Amino acid sequence: MKALVAGGAGFIGSHLVDALLAEGYEVVCVDNFFIGTRENIRHLEGEPRFTFYEQDLSDFDGTLAIFERERPDHVFHMAANSDIQASAEDPLIEYKNTYSTTFVLLECMRRTGVKKLFFASTSAVYGEQMGAEVGEEAVALKPISYYGGAKLGSEGIISAFTYMNDLQTLVFRFPNVIGPRLTHGVIFDFVKRLKADPSHLRILGDGRQSKPYIYVMDLVEAIVRFREVPVGVTLYNVGVESQTSVTRIGEIVCEKMGLGGIPFEYTGGRGGWKGDVPVFAYDLSRIHTAGWTAKMTSDEAVARTVEQVV
Amino acid sequence: MKALVAGGAGFIGSHLVDALLAEGYEVVCVDNFFIGTRENIRHLEGEPRFTFYEQDLSDFDGTLAIFERERPDHVFHMAANSDIQASAEDPLIEYKNTYSTTFVLLECMRRTGVKKLFFASTSAVYGEQMGAEVGEEAVALKPISYYGGAKLGSEGIISAFTYMNDLQTLVFRFPNVIGPRLTHGVIFDFVKRLKADPSHLRILGDGRQSKPYIYVMDLVEAIVRFREVPVGVTLYNVGVESQTSVTRIGEIVCEKMGLGGIPFEYTGGRGGWKGDVPVFAYDLSRIHTAGWTAKMTSDEAVARTVEQVV
Repeated sequence: MKALVAGGAGFIGSHLVDALLAEGYEVVCVDNFFIGTRENIRHLEGEPRFTFYEQDLSDFDGTLAIFERERPDHVFHMAANSDIQASAEDPLIEYKNTYSTTFVLLECMRRTGVKKLFFASTSAVYGEQMGAEVGEEAVALKPISYYGGAKLGSEGIISAFTYMNDLQTLVFRFPNVIGPRLTHGVIFDFVKRLKADPSHLRILGDGRQSKPYIYVMDLVEAIVRFREVPVGVTLYNVGVESQTSVTRIGEIVCEKMGLGGIPFEYTGGRGGWKGDVPVFAYDLSRIHTAGWTAKMTSDEAVARTVEQVV
Repeated sequence: MKALVAGGAGFIGSHLVDALLAEGYEVVCVDNFFIGTRENIRHLEGEPRFTFYEQDLSDFDGTLAIFERERPDHVFHMAANSDIQASAEDPLIEYKNTYSTTFVLLECMRRTGVKKLFFASTSAVYGEQMGAEVGEEAVALKPISYYGGAKLGSEGIISAFTYMNDLQTLVFRFPNVIGPRLTHGVIFDFVKRLKADPSHLRILGDGRQSKPYIYVMDLVEAIVRFREVPVGVTLYNVGVESQTSVTRIGEIVCEKMGLGGIPFEYTGGRGGWKGDVPVFAYDLSRIHTAGWTAKMTSDEAVARTVEQVV
């Protein structure tokens, strides 16, 4: 089996590349280094089952040439802008990197007859409507970030291509993912601020924003485990039941940096920034029933990641 | 008030332009004549409150220049590929004409501070899940056509832009629209076939595909009536409760053409073509409660349109 991993030099994508190689796949990794890095795939130099293309996946002709040359069996679409704060200032980032990459990959699959797809979607498609009762099918989708909007758009066009071309499509909607090779986010921000000035920690919002953080290895294990699905779209919420508040992240960072008694200064307000969903949790019973649960809790994932970053 | 009507030379768009002029608006009409025609707006030559730009709305720079020059108060986004059968052969049509036009218009609104938006969405976002019980909020959205997928994607990114920029957004999801200036579809096909060969009528599927057809004047009246909405997305299903089967359309066409006893030959199967939703109806109670119902039934709309086409 030959897998094409779109965004394979990125944070999650590069871990998926490692996992697919371990499963015996040939892997074609495509990335434009917009967020992904050469560092993330350097350890694969010389691996005979690994091929890399530097290519912007929103460019149709260049991407089609790779499909025609490589003829993959399975596409794992991990390419996207993952920095919601950045695109809040420039929404066209999401148009190009999140939505257009999806449409181009789907059309390349259609033209070259590729039938198997994994798509990395997000809890951000739900917007602010999340709650323990919110399952995959039961809810109107009202994203409040450009990222969530572009991912919902991707799901929409994936639904159409899947129906029209009898694709076998797996879609995971997952929340914040953390772990080795992470590039940005609240853990980074806190470590950076405390290294620059360990006298206090500035925290956006009221600190009670609370989210489930999933460890990247847990997520990648689920992708690999569920990758073969029947014709149609198979959709799972994937995450952890537990959550970690922003204040708790601050405490863990201080603890791991050996900083005791640092005062936390809150900017106030409900959310960290506009487009951020301050509190969420969603129904994971479908994937739990299918036999998968994350190994690490949200707090454990945060603590492990802080150790890597500090 | 100055309205920018995107796709204003198209079938529905040009009727909306007429209605907005009648309401006293200044109207800036933008169209690339992909499906729209000069014929549809010829009667407006010399109208001082009407301005026309020939512009591809998927081109950001050209579209932004129009926004900066005209500074509209209200955008009515009617631009899209409306020919689902055509894009089934070439999905990139939907990427360019249906999705990209939406993203470009939203970003132009954001950059120039336009707050009011109407968006022409579609019952196709529901896919095959429709039924009398299917209301605006209660259903997972699984489009089966590239058109429906691109429209759902548009709704997703509209949700995000509305939240992030405090837009006042009205979205109508409507089914087949017919009436004067219609350009394609089953009524046209039947008239054309019978003019070419009046000995029989070939019908795709089993003829029992059954849909609500709304008359374009009814739809445009609803757009104008509900155009002012509060901050956020206001979403309505808009349509007629009645439906017309494909066989019934054949009967009406034969009757209006004075052709009696023509045999109907069915190609068989449930749907007319892949991506077609063979039977649907949806819950209109929200807009009915708001005080609007269509004046014409589906059969009346079909009969009136056949008279215009024959």
